[in-house]
Amino acid sequence: MAIEIPRSEYLSRVAIMQESVKKEGLDAILVHGHEADCANVRFFSDFWPTFESAAVLIPAEGEAFLLVGPESKEYAEGRSMLKNIRTMIEYRESADPEYPGLAVSTYPDVFGEALGGKPLKRLGLGSYTITPLPVIEGLKAAFPKAEIVKADHLIRPMRAYKTDYEIACMRKAYQISEQAIDAIFSEIKVGMTELQVIGIAQRELYKNGAEYEGHALYCFCGKATCNAISRPTNNLIVPNEVIQLNIGARVCGYSSSVGIPFSIGPLPDRKRKLVEFGLKAHKKTYELLKGGKISGEVVREYEAWVKAEGYDKYMLYGPCHAIGMMEVEYPWMESTSEYTLKRNMTYQVDTFFHDVDFGLRWENGARITDNGVEILSSKFMKYTELPL
Amino acid sequence: MAIEIPRSEYLSRVAIMQESVKKEGLDAILVHGHEADCANVRFFSDFWPTFESAAVLIPAEGEAFLLVGPESKEYAEGRSMLKNIRTMIEYRESADPEYPGLAVSTYPDVFGEALGGKPLKRLGLGSYTITPLPVIEGLKAAFPKAEIVKADHLIRPMRAYKTDYEIACMRKAYQISEQAIDAIFSEIKVGMTELQVIGIAQRELYKNGAEYEGHALYCFCGKATCNAISRPTNNLIVPNEVIQLNIGARVCGYSSSVGIPFSIGPLPDRKRKLVEFGLKAHKKTYELLKGGKISGEVVREYEAWVKAEGYDKYMLYGPCHAIGMMEVEYPWMESTSEYTLKRNMTYQVDTFFHDVDFGLRWENGARITDNGVEILSSKFMKYTELPL
Repeated sequence: MAIEIPRSEYLSRVAIMQESVKKEGLDAILVHGHEADCANVRFFSDFWPTFESAAVLIPAEGEAFLLVGPESKEYAEGRSMLKNIRTMIEYRESADPEYPGLAVSTYPDVFGEALGGKPLKRLGLGSYTITPLPVIEGLKAAFPKAEIVKADHLIRPMRAYKTDYEIACMRKAYQISEQAIDAIFSEIKVGMTELQVIGIAQRELYKNGAEYEGHALYCFCGKATCNAISRPTNNLIVPNEVIQLNIGARVCGYSSSVGIPFSIGPLPDRKRKLVEFGLKAHKKTYELLKGGKISGEVVREYEAWVKAEGYDKYMLYGPCHAIGMMEVEYPWMESTSEYTLKRNMTYQVDTFFHDVDFGLRWENGARITDNGVEILSSKFMKYTELPL
Repeated sequence: MAIEIPRSEYLSRVAIMQESVKKEGLDAILVHGHEADCANVRFFSDFWPTFESAAVLIPAEGEAFLLVGPESKEYAEGRSMLKNIRTMIEYRESADPEYPGLAVSTYPDVFGEALGGKPLKRLGLGSYTITPLPVIEGLKAAFPKAEIVKADHLIRPMRAYKTDYEIACMRKAYQISEQAIDAIFSEIKVGMTELQVIGIAQRELYKNGAEYEGHALYCFCGKATCNAISRPTNNLIVPNEVIQLNIGARVCGYSSSVGIPFSIGPLPDRKRKLVEFGLKAHKKTYELLKGGKISGEVVREYEAWVKAEGYDKYMLYGPCHAIGMMEVEYPWMESTSEYTLKRNMTYQVDTFFHDVDFGLRWENGARITDNGVEILSSKFMKYTELPL
């Protein structure tokens, strides 16, 4: 299967959303995207903003519109699957250029066209957590009588169950991530900085067909491995210490991440023991995943197992979150989760344990099948000690 | 001078902002940052969000607070210049995890602490264009009687005039960008993809001391060079065609970008002529920049000069925008701009011309001095034809 999302799939997503918009009693849905969180915009248009932001407007009937900043017109024309593209000042750069003399569209213009002149009474917002003030204030000024409601729940199920095309992109993304770790294992040396190691990974991601990183890449050595979230620095790679990699390629908009703790030269026993327990817990998670199971049960069984093994004091959070167009996306799998796992949901199994002076994280992808899981990356699911 | 922003400078920024907050009759200012646009948060704290978002709360009196998502606590403790750090659900990932059982702070908690129990009457928002709905709705729910006003104008002058430390970071960032272009010129081959070329650049940025890319890097070949904004693809590098690079390193939060159009083998005359005219226009711009000059005059003189040379039909926009913590930041230099150029303002001279089938962009940095400019990168300010 070609590694791409065909145009027909984008158009089918728009058509499915239009049915939901109608059922929900909305006139239209507006989804927002910015450089670091563009997933909903890309899902319907394949457009991927940079510098500026963007939105997709999908009316209950008729054609969808891609709304971009003033400088993205040609870029959008070259790549958008939606043919109706309008430039708007609301999607300009945060430096607020005035663009004297430049003609742009307004919300009344684009809603007028999209709704065929019918008044806007009820609008859904599909990217609530990232929709910024200029957009909401622009909408309220243009349509003071319209009701504006949250509508993330209409998109989330569409993104949660992947199609065969989406899964092919994800498999490729995980494969490229593994290639990058292979290159790091060949080239990493004591005395390099964490950032130099990231440079090796970046070169390999792009060389092997990634369009970008799937998330900000991690390489941490020593105490920095305690962090659940962090950034690599000029901290040096040292021997006999936990080194943590989380490397993720992005392919056609789909992310991946492979996480492995390893060392150059042997680890002290206490550290090796926790790293190896983490791997055992990581593998345990895959045993618990299968279609038909209640998601919260996976978490409760996993947490009970970790507790029975005596390692719960080293655990920050539960075992999986969904992955797709974002490395972390809805739904999470938490002890309170009530939804049922179904075929073609895709998860990042994210096994993080930490002590006071180091931590470790095993991460690989999983696709839910009717009877279990397809593991999307397994090459580095093993304890690795590189020679000094 | 060490390439860093010392802690004293962050604390001084907070103190200066507190004076502005008082003068403006505000009780506090809240600035927001996300992964792709974190500048205001980093400016006051050095904290640099990834996956989650963040904010800095600066009261008129007393201590400032860094507000982060639930998973960023340890990361923030390791890097924030502000010692008061609180985790809040409003700054979690856009996948909306529930974090069952996790204790977090609320807006009433942190404003209560920051204002010493005084009621919040008037709050300034310092990152208006990127502040998202959960933040504004959280604030309105917590403080229904408070007045919430735009306050970007308090931060912008602080970021526009750079200190010696900031300029040292920018000089280093431009130097690393030049090193990356050197490496590309050594290694680029006909038949590579645009993305492979980006991989070479990324490796060099990290190898030479960048902490990240300063912006999404560009390599375009052929028709894709028409775009003002775009993304590199698997499009192939071909001979005798315009290849456009825009490569930017980030150092201690400060961005750079070096842009050069070049070719492998000779260009057809029509293309070579426009590339060389672009270089002439690029150099012309530096002649127009100096302390004391009205910014709009630079643009009007530049545009009149381009028109007199007969090239105005190839021009999309004017010659400069500010650069600093963002590759594009406030203020732009437009024909309508009325402010005066002053010492230590830093600009990206961004000279873009395009015809129907190709475009070109010369980009280098400039620091305004009392009598002219310091050019922050000049190594690639020349016509370059690599051998076939």
